[in-house]
Parts: sequence; C-alpha cells; structure tokens
Amino acid sequence: MNMNTRNRETALVVFSGGQDSTTCLLWALKRYREVVAVSFDYGQRHREELACAKEIAQQLDVEWHVLDMSLLNQLAPNSLTREGISVDQEAPEEGPPNSVVDGRNMLFLTFAAVFAKQRSITDLVTGVSQSDFSGYPDCRDVFIKSLNATLNLAMDTTFCIETPLMWIDKADTWRLAQELGGLELVKEKTLTCYNGVRGDGCGHCPSCTLRRKGYEEFLARYRKDEV
Amino acid sequence: MNMNTRNRETALVVFSGGQDSTTCLLWALKRYREVVAVSFDYGQRHREELACAKEIAQQLDVEWHVLDMSLLNQLAPNSLTREGISVDQEAPEEGPPNSVVDGRNMLFLTFAAVFAKQRSITDLVTGVSQSDFSGYPDCRDVFIKSLNATLNLAMDTTFCIETPLMWIDKADTWRLAQELGGLELVKEKTLTCYNGVRGDGCGHCPSCTLRRKGYEEFLARYRKDEV
Repeated sequence: MNMNTRNRETALVVFSGGQDSTTCLLWALKRYREVVAVSFDYGQRHREELACAKEIAQQLDVEWHVLDMSLLNQLAPNSLTREGISVDQEAPEEGPPNSVVDGRNMLFLTFAAVFAKQRSITDLVTGVSQSDFSGYPDCRDVFIKSLNATLNLAMDTTFCIETPLMWIDKADTWRLAQELGGLELVKEKTLTCYNGVRGDGCGHCPSCTLRRKGYEEFLARYRKDEV
Repeated sequence: MNMNTRNRETALVVFSGGQDSTTCLLWALKRYREVVAVSFDYGQRHREELACAKEIAQQLDVEWHVLDMSLLNQLAPNSLTREGISVDQEAPEEGPPNSVVDGRNMLFLTFAAVFAKQRSITDLVTGVSQSDFSGYPDCRDVFIKSLNATLNLAMDTTFCIETPLMWIDKADTWRLAQELGGLELVKEKTLTCYNGVRGDGCGHCPSCTLRRKGYEEFLARYRKDEV
C-alpha cells in the first residue's frame, strides 16, 4: 500500500471506555468498513477503566488492543494515577485541573499513529473536544491540526486525525450517541466517574456532575422535538 | 517560573552516547549553565550503548537519566532491537534503511519535552541532521520545526529545540567536537558501531564506514589549515 494515500476503509479509535470515546467508536463503526480500538494502560487509579473498554469493544465486536504507557506515570505524577493525591472537587480558579498529565494526548495519539502505520491505517479517531476545553491545551483544535502535520512529517504518511466531538458540547455528544443508536450503551456501560463507578457514576465527582448536566441539557434540548 | 518564557540557563540533551549526541552535549556544556542528559532504553541490541552514555555523562559531570521506552520495541520491530533481523550492510536503493523505527525521534523528543517541563527546562538539544538524511523523515528540519510548534501547543510552553548539527556534515561534526575541545573524547569513548564496538568500531558496518569517511574528510578539510 502506498502510505501517501489515505486508506478510508479502516480507522483506529483511541478508546478509553468513557462517554466520549465510546461515542467516537460508534461513529467510526458507521463510517468505516473496519474499526480497530486502542486503549492505554498508564497505571490508571481505576483499573475498571480498561475492563470497561474491553467489554464495550467485545459487545461491539471491535478488535481491541492495550498499549502500555506506564512511563507516562513515571514522568508526570498526577491525581488520576497516584492514590495519594486527591482530585480537585471543583475546578481550580486558574489553570488546568490537577488531573492533567502534560502532553498526554500527544503521547497517546503519537503511539496510536505508530501502531496505525504498522497496520497501514491512516485514519485516527479521537474524542477530544474544544467545547469541553477545561484548561487542557492538548484538546484544542489547533493542537490536533499541528500534531497531524507533525505526524505526517515524522512518518512520511498521510494520517487524518478525525475529531467528531471537537465542536459539540456534552448535550450534543449524547444526541450523537442517540443518532448512532447507542444511547443506552453509552449511558449504562461507559465509565467517566473519577470514583470508578460505571454508568451514572458516583453522582458527586466533577466528572459525574458534568456528565449529568450534559444529559439533562440533552433531554431539555431534544426530547421535546420527539414528543 | 512562567513557562511562557524561555529559560536560557538550562538545557536537556537527548543523548545516546554516539558521536552526534556527544558533540551536542559538549556544545550544550559551553552554552548553558546547567545541562541535563537523557537517554532512552528501547531494548537496544547493544546494551553497551547505555553504559557508554553513562560513562561519558559521568566523565563530563552531567546529570544523566534513562527513560524506559520498551514500548517502542513492542510497536515497531526492527533490526536495531531484534536479534533475529540483520542490519542492511548497504543502504537499500529506495526508502529508509531497515533500522528505522517509525516515529522514533518524535517519541524520544516528546518524552524528553514532558520530562523537561517537569524540570522547568525549555531548551531541548538533539543531534539530528538533515545533511545526514538517509531516508529518515524525522531527521528533517521541517519535521523538527513542526514538532517544536506542536509541543508548544500541547503543553502551552515555549520549548526551543536546538539542533547544532542540522546543516553540517560528518566532517564538520568532527570539526565542531575539536573546536569544543572534545575530539579525543568523541573519537575514543562514543559508540556508533552497529556491532557494538566503541570508538573506531568494527570498521565494516555501514555506521563505521560513514564515521571513518567523515573523519578522513575532516582531516583532509581542516588539518592542512593547522600546519
């Protein structure tokens, strides 16, 4: 295969088992003939996250791989991977929340791209969203575009990073899952809760609050159209 | 420290213990008050490479770290890391030599940047050279500049990637080592040989041939000036 042309038949989805990446996996399954999902093991505090990703991949009959990113934890100690550090219950007034691992998305996407090239896959799908920009510089569209160009130069290949959620908010992410026929799957099987509880989660951590607010907004925005 | 300004006092050198990166280490020691060196353990066939890097760092009194990049080997099997694959004795007619690990420089520099940010270091030094471009897309200047921009966006920081060897050939790299007072050190202590022999090496692998040709060219080009 000539790696300077895009292969539109296969996609590699960066997949954590959360709401966003599960919605992206459903999106990819509608658009590509073949979909491969890759998750990263970076010593997450909740091992449940990988179990959750595995189950969803199995349920959707998607080829699934885990890549070891334990070095990430070694480089950038943070509250999502170290037991001893508490997650901010509310976002800090300035700067990113303390759950940030610097450069994490860049490393994940770069590893995913190396993996993809081994398989002659040129389309990478990631659930990052600028709407959702909570102080993470590597969720911005400008970063993703710059990274795409850099990956192409690094490996002399035409990667296309697809970001179906880049410009939509949490309510429209629920709407997208519904359109893709996966609303119940996303609501019940995904894990976004900082305390490691699947589905609706613990109900009180910042991630559960954000998820619930998005869902309520989704109901308010769309359900009335359907009555 | 404000990470949007450049710290010109400290540099992080990506350091393999070879001719090029040792010359870069000497270069950095002249220009910065503090120099830190980082090497990568990616399951190199020659463990000697890391031992060599350690000894040179000790001799130059430079703080030295090894980062585990074993995942790289898992992703991209190749002839420098797998015992079973022989290195091309001559460069293939087309395309990069089979010792390439796709995206290797990008991963090394990105990990180095994450490490640097933890230490509030903004200057990264690497020995890549476009003159030396033997089919490796991630040694090109355009790649390094694109990567620099992407790293800055990813981590909201002002990194400066310094590439002292980008536009000079092997002969001028020897000349630079001489100017920096390190000609004997580079000639005797560094390891570039594919067969793991320090200094002048085995004498017959492609890397030894390139190194010797560069040294002979250096002698021819400059020694006459000094008589």
